[in-house]
Parts: sequence; structure tokens; C-alpha cells
Amino acid sequence: MADKVELQDEIKTQGEVVRKLKAEKASKEQIDEEVAKLLQLKAQLGGDEGKHVFVLKTAKGSRDYNPKQMAIREKVFNIIVGCFKRHGAETIDTPVFELKETLTGKYGEDSKLIYDLKDQGGELLSLRYDLTVPFARYLAMTKITNIKRYHIAKVYRRDNPAMTRGRYREFYQCDFDIAGQYDAMIPDAECLKIVYEILSELDLGDFRIKVNDRRILDGMFAVCGVPDEKFRTICSTVDKLDKMAWEDVKREMVIEKGLSEEVADRIGEYVSMQGGKDLAERLLQDPKLSQNKQACAGLTDMKLLFSYLELFQVTDKVVFDLSLARGLDYYTGVIYEAILSQTIQAPVSKPSEQNGVEEAGTSVGSVAGGGRYDGLVGMFDPKGRKVPCVGVSIGIERIFSIMEQKAEASSEKVRTTETQVLVASAQKNLLEDRLKLTSELWNAGIKAEVLYKKNPKLLRQLQHCEETGIPLVAILGEQELSDGVVKLRDVASREEASHFNKRFLNKGCVT
Amino acid sequence: MADKVELQDEIKTQGEVVRKLKAEKASKEQIDEEVAKLLQLKAQLGGDEGKHVFVLKTAKGSRDYNPKQMAIREKVFNIIVGCFKRHGAETIDTPVFELKETLTGKYGEDSKLIYDLKDQGGELLSLRYDLTVPFARYLAMTKITNIKRYHIAKVYRRDNPAMTRGRYREFYQCDFDIAGQYDAMIPDAECLKIVYEILSELDLGDFRIKVNDRRILDGMFAVCGVPDEKFRTICSTVDKLDKMAWEDVKREMVIEKGLSEEVADRIGEYVSMQGGKDLAERLLQDPKLSQNKQACAGLTDMKLLFSYLELFQVTDKVVFDLSLARGLDYYTGVIYEAILSQTIQAPVSKPSEQNGVEEAGTSVGSVAGGGRYDGLVGMFDPKGRKVPCVGVSIGIERIFSIMEQKAEASSEKVRTTETQVLVASAQKNLLEDRLKLTSELWNAGIKAEVLYKKNPKLLRQLQHCEETGIPLVAILGEQELSDGVVKLRDVASREEASHFNKRFLNKGCVT
Repeated sequence: MADKVELQDEIKTQGEVVRKLKAEKASKEQIDEEVAKLLQLKAQLGGDEGKHVFVLKTAKGSRDYNPKQMAIREKVFNIIVGCFKRHGAETIDTPVFELKETLTGKYGEDSKLIYDLKDQGGELLSLRYDLTVPFARYLAMTKITNIKRYHIAKVYRRDNPAMTRGRYREFYQCDFDIAGQYDAMIPDAECLKIVYEILSELDLGDFRIKVNDRRILDGMFAVCGVPDEKFRTICSTVDKLDKMAWEDVKREMVIEKGLSEEVADRIGEYVSMQGGKDLAERLLQDPKLSQNKQACAGLTDMKLLFSYLELFQVTDKVVFDLSLARGLDYYTGVIYEAILSQTIQAPVSKPSEQNGVEEAGTSVGSVAGGGRYDGLVGMFDPKGRKVPCVGVSIGIERIFSIMEQKAEASSEKVRTTETQVLVASAQKNLLEDRLKLTSELWNAGIKAEVLYKKNPKLLRQLQHCEETGIPLVAILGEQELSDGVVKLRDVASREEASHFNKRFLNKGCVT
Repeated sequence: MADKVELQDEIKTQGEVVRKLKAEKASKEQIDEEVAKLLQLKAQLGGDEGKHVFVLKTAKGSRDYNPKQMAIREKVFNIIVGCFKRHGAETIDTPVFELKETLTGKYGEDSKLIYDLKDQGGELLSLRYDLTVPFARYLAMTKITNIKRYHIAKVYRRDNPAMTRGRYREFYQCDFDIAGQYDAMIPDAECLKIVYEILSELDLGDFRIKVNDRRILDGMFAVCGVPDEKFRTICSTVDKLDKMAWEDVKREMVIEKGLSEEVADRIGEYVSMQGGKDLAERLLQDPKLSQNKQACAGLTDMKLLFSYLELFQVTDKVVFDLSLARGLDYYTGVIYEAILSQTIQAPVSKPSEQNGVEEAGTSVGSVAGGGRYDGLVGMFDPKGRKVPCVGVSIGIERIFSIMEQKAEASSEKVRTTETQVLVASAQKNLLEDRLKLTSELWNAGIKAEVLYKKNPKLLRQLQHCEETGIPLVAILGEQELSDGVVKLRDVASREEASHFNKRFLNKGCVT
């Protein structure tokens, strides 16, 4: 008994410390922000010198993408969009802002992270927080009941940015969703196939896709003796199992959330289970779970899902894992998350504590996530009509970071242009001839550049090729002009040909 | 004398009426917006029934893009980006919001149209108003002095939307700029070549590109006797010549802006002039203009520009037009604007009165515009270092509208997916075989779909092909399965082949 009191005291003390630390952190944050605001105002008022001093920066938590980052971004998008198109998806776009009330009540605690626009007269607006709520609003508004769509766009969260770890206030989401009333688990299986294809093609190393079902979790909590009103909070504790040891998770359940040891241990038994179709079959025979209607429905669907995944040949990477419990309230059925096995040395997208919402990167190494949400569209429909949906969000920012790191580590230079040939000259006074030839190349659909100088040095022109990776240089000279030919040089090998040979030029093709 | 007084009185009366009408319009606007806000708040508080009622809409002046619009948008972007890449351009991206003060003092009167974010603690932010100011901020911040970049992104203006005429509060801009200290007019000529290529390739009908120079305009005003402090305001009156007759423009100069009749008439003589290189040469001999240093510099450059445009073979569409006077304050040299000759029946992007800023569509039919702005980057650089820039903005929203209208008028259906083949079956219980074959096609890089039903009717499957334009259907049946073949049908011709013939399948290729 004394032990328990002591323990409780210690918890109390620790709680105080945490609260104090949090308060200090918050106030430091606040002070920093207030200082920034004051500096900004001061700059706006003008300095003493009477000269306007700008604070030359992007907004906190946002960044510019330079050409190299854009080249990597384009490559990643091409692979992902290519996969979506291979699966027959359409794309839509929605505005960057929504009516404030469209977002109200969709994100729980995280609503405080929503960016609002200033009331300048007119409607109250907020920047979109994810792409799922706008998608649901779009479906309800257009009364579309069947669509397979992807949407790649930026979303906004007033989170505390950890930019060195790749977390921003403005970041991309990349969502694929299938809406419609269909036979069970077929679209769900396609979402997993898509994750499998994308992660394979991006070549990020080995990965696993964990799968579970909201109904199995709820059923499990019920048969373990968790009171109904604690399902959500226990769910979010279970969600920490990928970052915390079972002992710590259990402690949180018992001490913070008030479960009994026995209930926690029962949960512990289940959440340690991993498997495939066999596990679903075994659990359907489980004396307790099989008594729960929700769990049975989830397990039956899980079995079916795995039979489709077998046909799709992706079961080598997919694992039914009872510890997977994605935070989002709106999931109603199957849920999943893809994790890179190998932790590549890359900025890690560490989630905020409450942040289970939609961001794919909810655990270290997590690069995709999603699930079934059959109720969300109904929240927008005036008549509450439901449109069943299942979808996946690719953790594109994390993938960018990894690809950037890979590019950094590799000896190969990232090209930021696709130019095939530079039109150059070794002699003076040939600007007009250079411009004319360049124009002819453009007209022929060849990607060409010319330096904007009247008489650039040949060395400078060759340097430009080397710096930007242009593979070919077309060199004009008096001799070539009078002979009616062009000297073409392969920049890397220095091999030359003194006329326009199409096959030679093809070496410069980038596509 | 009495006539003049009468006239002045009439003008006064008319002014009153206009002011009154404007006030009424503004207050109607305001009332509408206040009502919308109240309705929104009411909805947020919840209705009497205790059921939450959503206002199911996008924010005023914004819209969703449906899959068909996105397909057209993608096609347009591909052509434009293809051209930018052919010219060796890189791309960058900047955040959707900037520090409020970054935008301060860049847009004159139009600053009131900037969207501000709510002060939720931290920095004061605004949504970007164009892509040029963020580009200049980026150059100053990164100290980059040479770059050829394009940037396609959405910008935000709290303008009164005229959505039926294709004007929105959220819309795309599509900018190409060349920054760097180069020999005169070479990059400027390339910008015009790019406009020529893009408009030709988009196939929007005949077009003209008007060219002028800020220095020629200023020189002209000076030699005509316009006082220095009236240059800008007279410039904006001249800018109306594409929408108003000379008589009305003259009246505005004389009556509203207080020029003398003689000065106005002298301007009138110049602004009626159009031509090419010859006109520049002639004006260099003009007894008055040739005395003005600014005008001479501008005319000499204009002559040089045309000699480069000849090499680029674009002079058939380019005209030196002394009436072109784009509103933007920051232009320092050559300016240009492209106009479609034929007014296609399409929503017309009518500009607001003060709006000369960066939006390409500043006159009816205008689809691109730009010019040289050598001072803007210096406004951001702490040491005022200048980076000369020249660029062009493609009026992409107007082009979308025209392309949408064209698609609407054409009998050809716009495909929103690229699916090559639908995997179907005529018999029941073949779901697993359909899924397996579909997966094999995906793995082979073929764009394939399968209906998410256990036993869909063949007719339903063929309908899906017709509705979405899928050219081929792979039909599975017991017979085919036991023979180890697949029946492949061309949806349009109903031609069939009973095995997987690669050449046949290639018909479905969309690329």
C-alpha cells in the first residue's frame, strides 16, 4: 500500500516536471515568436537610417524548393503518378482554403493547428489541413458516388516545425482514394497493391506493410474488458508500440489511463500477434474474439483481403499486425501503414504527440498509411448519405528527404535541366549564327541552350555544359559555316563529329 | 467659356452618379458578405433541430477542378513546361504564404487585394499575390545572380470574382524569367520566342505580340511635354487604348488628368504608330525623340531586339506598338503582351481597373505578357544589389477556359484516365482470375482496370469502357482459361483476338 502511494506521488512529481517543462518550452516558443513579430513591425516602420530594412526569409516552417530539390520532386511525382494512372485513377484539385466550418469538428484536438485567414470581410476561411476532408466535401457537393482519384497538393499545419527533421508547416500530401459501394476488400486490396508498387519502384530499400482493422481493435478491447469510453484513448496508447516497449505502453494503460493490470495483459497478448491469413483464421477460432460481432466481421474481411493480396502477389511484404492502431477517428475498417525496414540516415519526420491525423509519417520509418473511412462523406451530405471510401496517403515529404540524401551521397550529379545541346562558338562575332542554329534546334523539338553573350569564351561555354550536365556542344566556326556543317562534340568523351548526324545527336536525348 | 463650365458641371454630376453607384455596389457586396458570414456562424452554432447544417460550398471566388478540367489542365501544362524545358529552364517553388512585409509596397493600390492570414501568434503572413515578388525575394535571399527558371503555381487576390468570365480569387500563374547580367536583348528575344512557340503549339488561332519599351514611353511623354509627375498616370490612360477609342482616351488625359489638348494630340500621333525594326529606325531619326536619351536607348534596343527576332523567325507575329503601356510600376525596359486575333467565345478575363499587375490577361484577348524589370531584386537585397531580370507570364487561366470551351464544342470526348485495358468476364465466379490477370498487367506496366464487383454483368463492363474511353477489354471465360488464352476485344470496332498479342495491345497505348 505504501508502495502504491509512493508511486503515485512520484507520478505526480513527474507530472509537475513535465508540465513545467512544457510550459517553459511553450513560453520560449512564444517569446521567440513575439520577438520575430516585433522585429518585423520595426522593419516595417523603417530603421533609423530611413532605409527600409527587410527581414529576408520565408515564413516559419516553410521553405523554398531549389531547382535540385524540384528535379528530385519531379522524379518522385512521376513514379507515383505513373502508378496511380496505371491503376486508372483520375485526379481532382480543390482550393487551398476552405470555409472554416468545413474543417470544424474534423480534427479533434489538432484543430488548434489549423491556419485561419484574417477576417477581411466576407466568409471565414482556413487553409486546408489535409486532402481527405476537402475530398469528402467535394464528393458531398458534387453528389459523386463513385470515383478513383488521386490528389497531390500542399497542406498547412501550425505545428512546431522541426525542419531539420523534415517537418514543415507547409508540406505535400499525396492521396489516392477509391469511393463507392463495392464488394468487400477489392478496393482495399488495390490500395495495398499501390503502396507495394510505389515503394518498390522508388527503390527505398526493404519495407513492410502492417495491416489491421478498426473493428478488430474495438472487438479486442471489448473482449479484454476495456470500458467503451476508453476505446479511443487506449487505441492511441497501443499506437505507441512502434516507438515504445510493451512495458512502457502497459504502464501508460494502467497508470495514466486507469486500466487494470489484467485487462492490460490481455491486450498485451493480442497486440503481440503478427501473421497473415493464417492468423486471421486462428483468431476467428479464438474463444473470446469469436464471440464479438465486430471482431468477427473484421477478421472475416482480413481473411478475404489476404486472399486478394495473394492474387496481387504482395503478401511477402504485408503483415497482419494487431498492434497497428492508427490514431484517426474517422477510420471504420481496415487500416494500414508502410514502414521502411532499414532506417536510412535521413531527416526523420517525428510526429507531434496528438498527431495521428492523415499524415502518413506517424512513426519513424513510416512512409505510407491509410484505411477505410465509410462515414466521412456522410458528415457533409445534407441528408447524411454515406459514400464508402478507402484510401492511402503516401508520405511524400519523407520520401523527398530520403531521395535528397541518396542524391547527396551518390557521385552522380542531379541535373536540373534537360538540355541536350549547347550551341557554342570558338570565334568572335558569331552570335547571330549561334542564335539562328539554336532557333532551328528549338523548332525541331531539340532542347538547346545558347549563352547570352556576344562573344563568350569557348572554355566558359564548355564549363557551362559540365556544370549543368549538357551532354553535347555544337561548335560553330568560320570554317564550319562556309562548309555548311556543324561540329558536334560529346562533352564527356570529347569525341567530335563535324556534321549533324542524327544518331549522334540522340545521345543527348534525356527522355 | 459657358460651354466649358457646362461641361465641367456635367462631369461633376456624372462623377457623383458614378460615386453613388460605386458606393451602392460596394455596400451590396458588403451586405452579401455579411449575410454569408452570419449564415456561416449560424450553421456553426447548429440549427434548431440540433442537427449541424453545413454550408456545402467552396470559398467565394474559388473552385474545385473536376477530372475533366484536370485532364485539360495537364495537357496545357505539358505543352508549356515542354517549351520551358526545351529552352533549358529550371523550376523552383516558393511557399504559398510570405511574410506580410515581403509583399508590402510592391503592388500600390492593389495591396488591398492581398489575403492576410489571421494573427494566431508568430509572424504576420499573407498569401502570395503573384510569383514575381517571391522570385525576387528568392534571388535576394539565395544571392543567386543567374538563373533561367519557370514557376507554375496558384496566387491569391481578394478581387471581386467574375467567375462566369473566368476570373477567380485563386488562380494559376505560369511565369518564365531570365535573371542575370547579359548582353542586351538576347534573353528578351528568347522570352518572345517562347511566347510564340507556346501560343503556336497550343493552337489557339492567330495571335499578335505587341512590344514596346518603358524608356520609349517615358521619352515620348517627356518630348510631348507631359510633366514628370504625370508619367505614371498618363501611362495608365494610354494603357486603355486597346479597350477605348482614342477620343475617349484623349478626353481622359485632358479632362481628368489635366493635360493640354496639344500635349494630348502629340501623344496621339505617337501612340498610333505600329511597325517593326523600320519603325524603330525611323523614330531614331525623329527630330524630337532623338533628342531624348531614354527614348534613344529604348529605340536602339528595339532595333536590336528585332534583329534577334528575325533570327528566331518570329517577326511575322511581333509588332512594335507605341500604344502598349503595361501598368506595372516595376518594368524598366522592354514590355510585351500577346493577344489572340480571333476572339474565341470563351469566358473573358476582364481586368479590374487598377489591375495591371503581373496578371497576363490585362486586355480582352490577352494571353501572355511581361517585360524587363531590372530593379525589383534590388528592393530586397540588403545592399541593394541589382539583378537584371526579364520574364513573361502566360495567362494560363484564360487558356484553360478556351481549351475547355474547345473541348466542349468538339465531338471528341476528353478522357480523364489513361487506362488501356479493362479486365472483364462474361461468366460468374471469375473474380479471382480477373484480379490475377489485372495484377499481371500492372506488373508489366500496362494501365489496367477491373470492376470491384464479384460478378459484374458483361454489359456493365463494356459500358464502363465506353464511358471512360478504355479502348480494349480483356474478356475471361471458362473456355479461355482452360485454353490458357485471353480474348481481347477492341471496344470501338468490336474486333476480337483470342490471345494476348502484343501488337494488338499496343493499340491501347495512350502515350
